[in-house]
Amino acid sequence: MIAHKKIFNDPVYGFVSVPRGILLDLIDHPFFQRLRRIRQLGLSSFVYPGALHTRFHHALGALHLMQEAIETLRQKGVDISPDEAEGACAAILLHDIGHGPFSHALEHSLAALHHEELSQLFMERLNLEFHGQLELAIRIFRDEYPKKFLHQLVSGQLDMDRMDYLNRDSFFTGVSEGVIGYDRIIKMLAVHEGELVVEEKGIYSIEKFLIARRLMYWQVYLHKTGVSAEKMLIHALRRARELSLSGVSLEVPRHLGWFLFREPDSNPDAAEMLAHFSKLDDNDLTAAIKYWSEAEDFTLSFLCKGLLDRRLFRLEWHTAPVEESHVQNIRERITQKWGKEAILDHLLYTGSESNRAYNDTREQIKILFKDGTVKPIDQCSDVPMYTQLVTKYFVCYPKGLDL
Amino acid sequence: MIAHKKIFNDPVYGFVSVPRGILLDLIDHPFFQRLRRIRQLGLSSFVYPGALHTRFHHALGALHLMQEAIETLRQKGVDISPDEAEGACAAILLHDIGHGPFSHALEHSLAALHHEELSQLFMERLNLEFHGQLELAIRIFRDEYPKKFLHQLVSGQLDMDRMDYLNRDSFFTGVSEGVIGYDRIIKMLAVHEGELVVEEKGIYSIEKFLIARRLMYWQVYLHKTGVSAEKMLIHALRRARELSLSGVSLEVPRHLGWFLFREPDSNPDAAEMLAHFSKLDDNDLTAAIKYWSEAEDFTLSFLCKGLLDRRLFRLEWHTAPVEESHVQNIRERITQKWGKEAILDHLLYTGSESNRAYNDTREQIKILFKDGTVKPIDQCSDVPMYTQLVTKYFVCYPKGLDL
Amino acid sequence: MIAHKKIFNDPVYGFVSVPRGILLDLIDHPFFQRLRRIRQLGLSSFVYPGALHTRFHHALGALHLMQEAIETLRQKGVDISPDEAEGACAAILLHDIGHGPFSHALEHSLAALHHEELSQLFMERLNLEFHGQLELAIRIFRDEYPKKFLHQLVSGQLDMDRMDYLNRDSFFTGVSEGVIGYDRIIKMLAVHEGELVVEEKGIYSIEKFLIARRLMYWQVYLHKTGVSAEKMLIHALRRARELSLSGVSLEVPRHLGWFLFREPDSNPDAAEMLAHFSKLDDNDLTAAIKYWSEAEDFTLSFLCKGLLDRRLFRLEWHTAPVEESHVQNIRERITQKWGKEAILDHLLYTGSESNRAYNDTREQIKILFKDGTVKPIDQCSDVPMYTQLVTKYFVCYPKGLDL
Amino acid sequence: MIAHKKIFNDPVYGFVSVPRGILLDLIDHPFFQRLRRIRQLGLSSFVYPGALHTRFHHALGALHLMQEAIETLRQKGVDISPDEAEGACAAILLHDIGHGPFSHALEHSLAALHHEELSQLFMERLNLEFHGQLELAIRIFRDEYPKKFLHQLVSGQLDMDRMDYLNRDSFFTGVSEGVIGYDRIIKMLAVHEGELVVEEKGIYSIEKFLIARRLMYWQVYLHKTGVSAEKMLIHALRRARELSLSGVSLEVPRHLGWFLFREPDSNPDAAEMLAHFSKLDDNDLTAAIKYWSEAEDFTLSFLCKGLLDRRLFRLEWHTAPVEESHVQNIRERITQKWGKEAILDHLLYTGSESNRAYNDTREQIKILFKDGTVKPIDQCSDVPMYTQLVTKYFVCYPKGLDL
Repeated sequence: MIAHKKIFNDPVYGFVSVPRGILLDLIDHPFFQRLRRIRQLGLSSFVYPGALHTRFHHALGALHLMQEAIETLRQKGVDISPDEAEGACAAILLHDIGHGPFSHALEHSLAALHHEELSQLFMERLNLEFHGQLELAIRIFRDEYPKKFLHQLVSGQLDMDRMDYLNRDSFFTGVSEGVIGYDRIIKMLAVHEGELVVEEKGIYSIEKFLIARRLMYWQVYLHKTGVSAEKMLIHALRRARELSLSGVSLEVPRHLGWFLFREPDSNPDAAEMLAHFSKLDDNDLTAAIKYWSEAEDFTLSFLCKGLLDRRLFRLEWHTAPVEESHVQNIRERITQKWGKEAILDHLLYTGSESNRAYNDTREQIKILFKDGTVKPIDQCSDVPMYTQLVTKYFVCYPKGLDL
Repeated sequence: MIAHKKIFNDPVYGFVSVPRGILLDLIDHPFFQRLRRIRQLGLSSFVYPGALHTRFHHALGALHLMQEAIETLRQKGVDISPDEAEGACAAILLHDIGHGPFSHALEHSLAALHHEELSQLFMERLNLEFHGQLELAIRIFRDEYPKKFLHQLVSGQLDMDRMDYLNRDSFFTGVSEGVIGYDRIIKMLAVHEGELVVEEKGIYSIEKFLIARRLMYWQVYLHKTGVSAEKMLIHALRRARELSLSGVSLEVPRHLGWFLFREPDSNPDAAEMLAHFSKLDDNDLTAAIKYWSEAEDFTLSFLCKGLLDRRLFRLEWHTAPVEESHVQNIRERITQKWGKEAILDHLLYTGSESNRAYNDTREQIKILFKDGTVKPIDQCSDVPMYTQLVTKYFVCYPKGLDL
Repeated sequence: MIAHKKIFNDPVYGFVSVPRGILLDLIDHPFFQRLRRIRQLGLSSFVYPGALHTRFHHALGALHLMQEAIETLRQKGVDISPDEAEGACAAILLHDIGHGPFSHALEHSLAALHHEELSQLFMERLNLEFHGQLELAIRIFRDEYPKKFLHQLVSGQLDMDRMDYLNRDSFFTGVSEGVIGYDRIIKMLAVHEGELVVEEKGIYSIEKFLIARRLMYWQVYLHKTGVSAEKMLIHALRRARELSLSGVSLEVPRHLGWFLFREPDSNPDAAEMLAHFSKLDDNDLTAAIKYWSEAEDFTLSFLCKGLLDRRLFRLEWHTAPVEESHVQNIRERITQKWGKEAILDHLLYTGSESNRAYNDTREQIKILFKDGTVKPIDQCSDVPMYTQLVTKYFVCYPKGLDL
Repeated sequence: MIAHKKIFNDPVYGFVSVPRGILLDLIDHPFFQRLRRIRQLGLSSFVYPGALHTRFHHALGALHLMQEAIETLRQKGVDISPDEAEGACAAILLHDIGHGPFSHALEHSLAALHHEELSQLFMERLNLEFHGQLELAIRIFRDEYPKKFLHQLVSGQLDMDRMDYLNRDSFFTGVSEGVIGYDRIIKMLAVHEGELVVEEKGIYSIEKFLIARRLMYWQVYLHKTGVSAEKMLIHALRRARELSLSGVSLEVPRHLGWFLFREPDSNPDAAEMLAHFSKLDDNDLTAAIKYWSEAEDFTLSFLCKGLLDRRLFRLEWHTAPVEESHVQNIRERITQKWGKEAILDHLLYTGSESNRAYNDTREQIKILFKDGTVKPIDQCSDVPMYTQLVTKYFVCYPKGLDL
């Protein structure tokens, strides 16, 4: 008596069941196993020590929710064939397959890395290996499949990606306020003229979902300590690259080095790049940071030691672009304290971060009323939606400057 | 080795510890034990079968949060003497002591019952019994004590009453979206010029608290099935009173009868009223409904059987006052189906319900910035606060009318 | 688009889905709605204030687990037809339908009430009303259906009744140690030669389940304060009956009076009894207690006031039958304090309570090994099973006796 | 208004508050920050993908419980001075400071590493840096302080280490059955003649704690897949060392190389060893595995690729030592499949694992009765304690051998 499903343990949902077949084979593939070594929240564990969960676990969770959503829709009479269900499941499973280590950090540092291009490369490569079994999944992923709601379940205002990550990030950070009623929202999903809609009585859950998302952005994803650590990491990578290109020899894991220390303007072969990229994970960056914390260059080792021992830079949020006089003052103090070795560009950062809880310009969340009419949510809710773009400006610099 | 505290089990917080002394003595008093028999959410268990928790448990929970809030404030250097702490704790413990059975139902039916007057009567009576030990609690409760923040912890925009009930109601209904970050909010509380304020980094938690409150109102407190049941109960009580005053003999628990079947305009003695009122709880109303479900009067037994077997009336929400033609149509169908015995005033109800998530006209939530400035939250948050009064109109009538 | 299922809110499992049809019709029946007014844990809320959950909610939860168990077994290739699934679901839904108010209390007081006879009466009556649709459910319930594992899911060592009540009682009391891995156990269930077995890797979960059950017995079901309250209730009912039979007039809800105050030896008609019994719930007993707390008889009003105001008797556990000298001493103190009015038989109780975590004499839990062999768990586990009958003796009497 | 405490987010307890001063300074020290990069459960995330939590988080959690235990004991009148409280807190915070990467793996591979010696070295070194402020903590840790119960809270049958790890491991694995009533147990702690005891009514919680511990051992800590991965890692390290000592050049992070590739018999200087050891964490081993997965040696790359892509060996549990004929058969298949390059000693492992839920030979859990007497738990509980040493034998080898 062999079960038709393999069961994964998940403290968020209890268990995630995966049917034997293509879905389980994808999970067993080294490309997917790599996601075990890439954290969902990058450096946020500096703020939330429990936030060590990986993209591997997130993808499994999103798959779980996709299965629930499909079951709910079928019970309401929506026609979804077994192949379509499998396609949607494979698409959600692979939606993050192209993510690199501490994702945004590396993407920001390396011109050669285009996240979307990589995802495409991974999927096509897997489709080849699996003899075309991923065709449907790829069409759903690219929004080229007629039943648009399947794509919307993978990538849309209420997709299973967001449902899982809000839920999961809330669980592992311990920020209970990020908890969303994912099960309630999923039970309220329906399909109207081929598109995903939400039943009327789900309006309050959607409002709650949007505010939870907003809260998670500012409280977790854009937490000042996490942003500070990310900026430090980006500048450590840039400094290492500068040194390497100028001839300084630095220890670095091989596949990371391929990306980081390559000549500018070189135009790599896609297959070669994929071969290297598929070997990269968080571990390579951490290893590099550990090596470089003992480097001779003051700026590089200062940044890397800071990341290692959690001596992170101070980040100030401002409601307007930071005044130049304030920035100049900080610059002077840095030079005063550490001398010319301290490269200001890598030790003092300014910039901004933005978030919009509900972006109504791309695609609206639609509400289905009992009488069969459908309206965008901002015409249904009796409170304003969170459509504003909220922008905060920052300056970030080492602590202990005696400003 | 006797512990200085008594421990109450609470699935919401794990345990609630109560120091031996006046607080435990209050809990042991029959007036307070009566709250064991009064549900926090009245008839909402028709919608949320787990929502059977009582005002007794809620008061204990609010006491628990008060103790945490006081500890947090003291750690931040706010001066709160042992007497003041005890006073605030006693005040929150007794804040609901005057509640009657299925509270609002009875209040709406009986002219003689003034909720606030009753609370005052209870507190004064207890103060007498406890030889004046409740003086300070009463002053805090009435906002007559100089340290205003103590009153605000008992009754204000962010009081421990709300913190507990949102949390507790969310727990027992299973509406996970009502979960608030009560512990995070409490940790962010501070005192500025004698008033309660929230530290800057608590802003998102406050936004989340307000939206959770809004959601709980429409999803739980004003759920159409719960509202329908409450209207039916109110009209059952009114019908019973009509019949009684017109000479029909109806079985009724004695103390309930004292209130329900007394002559209009009679002016009862306060002490006598308290003696009867302190014997009333949910059980008396349920007992009456069970008796009357077998009454001869069609309207009364129809309402009571409906409440007993959960054959509740349909309630339609409208965005504007319900059109008279629609109401008239329902009236005709009722008469057509049940004849003249069916008293329309008690079988068809119209009206409205309103809610405002954040009422900024009474008292503002104030945010304390790191530089020491304090501003009302609507000048700090970069999203609009939920200050609108949202009103919904309803018509409510028996099912099966073939409209 | 109407969903094929109705959804019930449940804080324990999130949601319970019930397909429209016979199962939902059973739930809507007044017999089943009556269970909304019967608490699962009787008087335990005196100890655990959150333990107010009802047999209604428990039956829904057990139904939910039955659906999960059936799905798991089907995925492992066990043949269960739609009719058999519905039968097993109906059987678990109705397994507690014959329970009376504060169940054991009343059963112990009234000779006329046989719990099993009542369950049979209810089921047969419902089967008539539903035109024989419950035949299969009744056969499964009575263990007269060939696929024995279906009965074992309803009533056996690992039935869905126990799974739900341990889980649910643990949730609402807040005794987190009673939590069982119900989902893990259900996923480990299998069928071997028509009987329910547990896969090898579920052994530790079963051990844990048994110890959790043991813990819940002594910490919740047989908690000394709860036992004390139950004894007081039983004796209040007995005293009321004595008074009534001796001609004293006592107020009592009608249907309760039919049972409580009837002549001994009278042999009631089954249909008549069912008519009265189906109107009884916890509320009738509480109403009676409230009436009698104002009775003239000292013993009766003493017991009822105690129950009302939670002035419960002290209960001492002893490891051997309580010594007569100790009991005699208590007797004398009672008489000394309250005089002859205090009827000793109703104010001082002795007796014993027993529990066996795992009763291997009736039916064994069987473990299925990978090689296909099956063994009783006590031959598989490398620790001893909890098969001992543990008995504790008690004496119970009013507090404040100055012993 | 600066809070006197720093707050850490913890999904297990909500928040952990740490007073500013020596405790916070210890946490900020690089030695302690290193624990952020050492997982509590090593390779168990291969089985439980959520089990990525670190010794850093565990130490904070244990500190939290220590603070609660101290508060409980003080409320019961136990005298604990502020210095003693701080000492016990520092001791629990540092109890795991000497742990290496994937702890047991490395300890088993490297003769030079003595776990206990390292802990001592770390503590003494920190005591020097903190000018002797850790004297009391070290005495408590070493059980050299007169108030023995303080040591027992750090290291004993019911210490805060176990309380936290059972709880935390259960949380992050999702094995809900490992949940213990840590708050209930802590509330039941007391001190009798200087030793830690448990109040009588805590007996069932202790039983539950022991069985939860047993369950966690076999279900998590000794899960066959986790054990298999650990054996593979140990043999990869051994093989790398063999190769290195025989002159093969292998990439390796510097500090790891210092331990791994040093000559046998060399006797390192303690300070030098500490300098290297304090730079080691999980990351170094993972980096090495990634390097070696591309090594030329078949055995080494086979093991490392397996660990990287989760192609783990099969592990069979046996109740007796595995028969030689079975082992011999596997050996032959391996050679048949991979030829002589496959070094059997590193691809086929036999051995045993043992666990005893309650080891009564070292120190007994003692129960305090209301009459003041104290007895070991095995004389109080009416069920047998889990004192047996349970041993299981295993054989472990690559999958796909067609046995």
